[in-house]
Amino acid sequence: MCEANAYILKDGVEELFLESVDKVVSREDGILLENIFGQQKLVRARIKEMALVNHRIILEKTE
Amino acid sequence: MCEANAYILKDGVEELFLESVDKVVSREDGILLENIFGQQKLVRARIKEMALVNHRIILEKTE
Repeated sequence: MCEANAYILKDGVEELFLESVDKVVSREDGILLENIFGQQKLVRARIKEMALVNHRIILEKTE
Repeated sequence: MCEANAYILKDGVEELFLESVDKVVSREDGILLENIFGQQKLVRARIKEMALVNHRIILEKTE
């Protein structure tokens, strides 16, 4: 499977935010992440970078 | 491998923009995509949505 782990960058440190993310949707109120288990998380952030082969999504909080 | 194809949404139609994308980096001047072959493409767009298990990234052009 090709899901990725989503991390939030906080003071230069990556904190795991949601594992095994499948879907990522940009919305007016933030980014909605959904993992392969159906768990959803909404966060006010932007996608800073992704490395899909390494299964990584890095998010950065926005105001 | 877990790369994804990047499409640009144009008048409601998805056009293939870059195949086998590995890295995606948000920059001041747009989004930089790099595929597993080392090919890079910069585009003034935002990430609209992604479905990693289906290997899809949908971009939407910005001004």
